[in-house]
Amino acid sequence: MWTLHQFPLCPFSRKVRILLAEKDVEFAMQLAYPWEKSDELMDLNRAGQTPVLSGERGGPLVDSTVIAEYFDETVQKSPLMGSGASARAEVRRLTIWFDQKCYAEAVNPLLLERMYKRLVLRQPPDARMLRVAGQALAQHLDYIEYLLGERRWLAGGSFSLADISAAAHLSVADYLGGLSFDGYPDAKTWYSTIKSRPSVRRLLPDRMEGLSPPQHYDKLDF
Amino acid sequence: MWTLHQFPLCPFSRKVRILLAEKDVEFAMQLAYPWEKSDELMDLNRAGQTPVLSGERGGPLVDSTVIAEYFDETVQKSPLMGSGASARAEVRRLTIWFDQKCYAEAVNPLLLERMYKRLVLRQPPDARMLRVAGQALAQHLDYIEYLLGERRWLAGGSFSLADISAAAHLSVADYLGGLSFDGYPDAKTWYSTIKSRPSVRRLLPDRMEGLSPPQHYDKLDF
Ligand SMILES: N[C@@H](CCC(=O)N[C@@H](CS)C(=O)NCC(=O)O)C(=O)O
Ligand SMILES: N[C@@H](CCC(=O)N[C@@H](CS)C(=O)NCC(=O)O)C(=O)O
Repeated sequence: MWTLHQFPLCPFSRKVRILLAEKDVEFAMQLAYPWEKSDELMDLNRAGQTPVLSGERGGPLVDSTVIAEYFDETVQKSPLMGSGASARAEVRRLTIWFDQKCYAEAVNPLLLERMYKRLVLRQPPDARMLRVAGQALAQHLDYIEYLLGERRWLAGGSFSLADISAAAHLSVADYLGGLSFDGYPDAKTWYSTIKSRPSVRRLLPDRMEGLSPPQHYDKLDF
Repeated sequence: MWTLHQFPLCPFSRKVRILLAEKDVEFAMQLAYPWEKSDELMDLNRAGQTPVLSGERGGPLVDSTVIAEYFDETVQKSPLMGSGASARAEVRRLTIWFDQKCYAEAVNPLLLERMYKRLVLRQPPDARMLRVAGQALAQHLDYIEYLLGERRWLAGGSFSLADISAAAHLSVADYLGGLSFDGYPDAKTWYSTIKSRPSVRRLLPDRMEGLSPPQHYDKLDF
């Protein structure tokens, strides 16, 4: 069986957990905090990042998108990359948008200020950084709202890795108290539909030790 | 025909130029400096980044890896992603390694210090940053040397997108005077083989206005 090396607030690990659940691939989980740079994690992934999926045939699989492409190629159930080269390009473009831009501008700063400073550095968050991250997050919600004006799902007519990636990042922001759908009705409906998928529902009860989410976090009706 | 929106020292644009040449796909080029955030570039790519490939069927293609996957799916000549799901995972892992880690730690700082500060900010480079970038680049050469101890090409037995990506980033570092293969004989041989491929040779005469490369830069025997 596969083992996913992850921690509860890693958005890329959440992305993998959702996609493996969508694909009905079973896996165990093992806690790994990248900032501890344990020998075990460094041996599995020279980049020292989570997630890593180890265990079956061949070397470990490193990087959330690499893992997604791997299972989309090897497991037929629930295709997640779109059909046709252009549709696939759009799924990949948006997946990268959330994994790189939304993460760097909004989710990573939130993780630093609200999780890492609290649990590891034992420092208070920087209010200015929180404000900047909040503004960036609002711009990403704007973009989601815009996309959903023309499409049922983020990359087009079908649920795809782009939706999974966006939901993974937003759910981490939500856990950290940084998400509000005020003014984004389509984004809110989309997120509530995603939240009710079994693949996502399954990870909402998870807690990061020492850090609680707001009350509404795991409610389907938020 | 396709049009590639790029600038000569953008490593991701170089990656696309090399892969399109390997695939025998014709394209025109148009200069775009992302820091100018022109309306044209922003309309093509909301992320405001180069490269973008516009022109044929459907919307523009954004992001170097999205472009690579698109042409690997649509053009049979010169498969670049590896064959079999595990080999493909390794090609993608290493491509991301160079595009994210090597770029962030070494190539982007070099571009900032030696290109952007000189051409746009009109400031001298920061010697400390150059030293840190140089050390990071050496670690990436170390890793290339290690990989080539076991493999003919970076991701295995065949030339792949991982080699293209690595060569694109290293060639930009080389243009900026930041690359030395002293102590890395296998990496040097690999890079010299890559440099002699027509796809790569074709881009070495390119110059960034206002910035000259060192003498050895476009020599095959360096
Ligand atoms: N491209 C990677 C990114 C993974 C990533 O950035 N993980 C974070 C934790 S959420 C990490 O390990 N950060 C520590 C580091 O980058 O050194 C993926 O998609 O899996
Ligand atoms: N993931 C993108 C990265 C492209 C990228 O970072 N391009 C740089 C120029 S080399 C850029 O546009 N930087 C400006 C910015 O990020 O705003 C790709 O693979 O194409």
